[in-house]
Amino acid sequence: MSSTVSPLAPKHVPELPEIAGVRIATGAAGIKYKGRTDVLLALFDKGTTVAGVLTKSKCPSAPVEWCRAKLKGGKARALVVNSGNANAFTGKTGRAATAFTAKLAAAAAGCKPADVFLASTGVIGEPLPAERFDGVMDQLARQAAPGRFLDAAKAIMTTDTFPKVATAQAKIGDATVNINGIAKGAGMIAPDMATMLSFVFTDASIAAPALQAILSDAVADTFNAVTVDGDTSTSDTLLVFATGAAEGATPITRASDPRLKAFRAAFGQLLASLSEQVARDGEGARHLVEIVVEGATSKRSARRIAMSIANSPLVKTAIAGEDANWGRVVMAVGKAGEPADRDKLSIWFGDTRVAHKGARDPGYDEAAVSRYMKNPEITLRVALGLGKGRDRVLTCDLTKEYVAINGDYRS
Amino acid sequence: MSSTVSPLAPKHVPELPEIAGVRIATGAAGIKYKGRTDVLLALFDKGTTVAGVLTKSKCPSAPVEWCRAKLKGGKARALVVNSGNANAFTGKTGRAATAFTAKLAAAAAGCKPADVFLASTGVIGEPLPAERFDGVMDQLARQAAPGRFLDAAKAIMTTDTFPKVATAQAKIGDATVNINGIAKGAGMIAPDMATMLSFVFTDASIAAPALQAILSDAVADTFNAVTVDGDTSTSDTLLVFATGAAEGATPITRASDPRLKAFRAAFGQLLASLSEQVARDGEGARHLVEIVVEGATSKRSARRIAMSIANSPLVKTAIAGEDANWGRVVMAVGKAGEPADRDKLSIWFGDTRVAHKGARDPGYDEAAVSRYMKNPEITLRVALGLGKGRDRVLTCDLTKEYVAINGDYRS
Repeated sequence: MSSTVSPLAPKHVPELPEIAGVRIATGAAGIKYKGRTDVLLALFDKGTTVAGVLTKSKCPSAPVEWCRAKLKGGKARALVVNSGNANAFTGKTGRAATAFTAKLAAAAAGCKPADVFLASTGVIGEPLPAERFDGVMDQLARQAAPGRFLDAAKAIMTTDTFPKVATAQAKIGDATVNINGIAKGAGMIAPDMATMLSFVFTDASIAAPALQAILSDAVADTFNAVTVDGDTSTSDTLLVFATGAAEGATPITRASDPRLKAFRAAFGQLLASLSEQVARDGEGARHLVEIVVEGATSKRSARRIAMSIANSPLVKTAIAGEDANWGRVVMAVGKAGEPADRDKLSIWFGDTRVAHKGARDPGYDEAAVSRYMKNPEITLRVALGLGKGRDRVLTCDLTKEYVAINGDYRS
Repeated sequence: MSSTVSPLAPKHVPELPEIAGVRIATGAAGIKYKGRTDVLLALFDKGTTVAGVLTKSKCPSAPVEWCRAKLKGGKARALVVNSGNANAFTGKTGRAATAFTAKLAAAAAGCKPADVFLASTGVIGEPLPAERFDGVMDQLARQAAPGRFLDAAKAIMTTDTFPKVATAQAKIGDATVNINGIAKGAGMIAPDMATMLSFVFTDASIAAPALQAILSDAVADTFNAVTVDGDTSTSDTLLVFATGAAEGATPITRASDPRLKAFRAAFGQLLASLSEQVARDGEGARHLVEIVVEGATSKRSARRIAMSIANSPLVKTAIAGEDANWGRVVMAVGKAGEPADRDKLSIWFGDTRVAHKGARDPGYDEAAVSRYMKNPEITLRVALGLGKGRDRVLTCDLTKEYVAINGDYRS
């Protein structure tokens, strides 16, 4: 946790309602930090389904491997998350630590270890002292109570400068269901700290395969469309838990059920809010940057070009310098390896077209664009003029503070 | 040109001999800079062959397109290079500027425009004021004289902090041939400045297709194995000119000719020296970093993993902070998308093995590694334990100075 809150932090933190069937407790297990909470226990009523998306890293953390195996069951009764240690690249010790933690939580929650989900965030390569959960786990289970989602978001922070929460409501049939989400991390930028974790809780009643389909669909344009520096964590974890405990909840078994329409929209908005908050808290960030690519040969091609722009150190440093340096955008389009025709390319910063059909737009007002670049939120749009493929990603700028945070982190 | 020379600059600048058949002149055309040379004219004797490799960017500069077309002829009589303006993303104006420059140079050199090669380095998107070459071109042609390679290297600098030159000698049959090379740029890091240009001159007699094969082979493990920030320029150009004017030069027509053995070795060493100098002059660089990946399933796979490490902002900032943060190396291996098995992975910083078979090496001395990280030259080795694929790339660290240089460049 940083003492300086990101200037891009949301001005308003929403009140999060209770979610029927979810109880939460947080505590201090002393994993690494002093004087703050570092462990979260969430307990779920019987019948809770679970879905998840996990890092594609070839070197995943021990908790990621645990979750990948247990998601096949589709059922959840408990979630344990710690900050301060990622339990990644910890070999057999790491696997033993996950098994031990799950056993402790299962005993405290009165369930099987296979119904316990785990996530860890913090330094890579240090053995996780899971024995420190012994003693706190029973106490947390006794204290667990409805609500407390903001506390939960705070307990999982590492270099985050603000807790990330979002809430939404939707009708499924006649029942009103609530969705709460929390997240930590500053994008995919801090593998030492295990980066991006997010947990979503709802009292809707949705079968696990349907929940998985909804999640996989929603994540494509939200969390998977955010980048801070292109460095994918060994620990990225996004889990969604559906208790089915909403009053009058209609059980849904298929993702294609038309009664899910409003829920899917609300769920997508919630993930969009959480993932935007992650970009807003990018380490050292001073500008939130939306990259829109249109006219590509496909959405997939547009995504790759947008990511090439979003991850370019030269584009990101130019934005840090509040310089509408569109030549660097041309470079990033050119290096993406996707279909592009220089002589059809146009580029906008905000509403100003700075380049058109392969050359500088002769009419553009550089002073106006320079003023625009001082905004904390910048939109950069590229039109390729080739097809109908369109996509949008969020990122932040690359500042000296990013280098300071990541150059000085361990030493 | 910067007033502060990179601390990684070579301590010794070699004397470059004359190359028979090459005459050089440099001048000040006032393209952008004041009080320095910014245009280079090289003239070649009749019979000079040429080969080249050019940026793979989908948005190449006008001179890159010119060279790509003219390389098919395989013959060269003149080379014109300017600094201060890249003539990239300049539309029809840019194409007209290349044609005009080639016509001027052809008239001055007494050859066809198709035998003139062009390169430009500097800002993207500004029209190149090629009319400023009018007047200086005739004068340069008159002044052109043997030698002057260091002057040539200086005339093409942009943010370079030192001129980059290298020389080598080899026997082909009974004849001794010389090879001189010059380069500019700080890797692929500065598209505003058109990044990497390199020109190599030899008095060997080698047919154009053979010269091309030798070049393409040598570039794979030299210039193509260097990265500063993964940002590929719109203007990368490497041309080699062979005059055949060495005393007693044996004409060679096939790249597979065994008489080329010593030449190929010398040529490869020369490109390795020039490309290493580019990494040493990476913007803001304080550490030269060699990344060695071995035990991969193939050389191609090893290259991709090495590049994933070399381009990771988190690895590069850790090295800037002199922190042997091997957890970030694990992250970069994991995100590369290539075959890797966490539990077989070992990592060394210098001679110290810090991680072994999927966990921290229990025996390693962190104090010794911390001392090692203070060296200006760092070797980072990863063993995957899967196969025999091996590769090596060079990069530099990511410092606050990089952000300052690239955030403040245009404004």
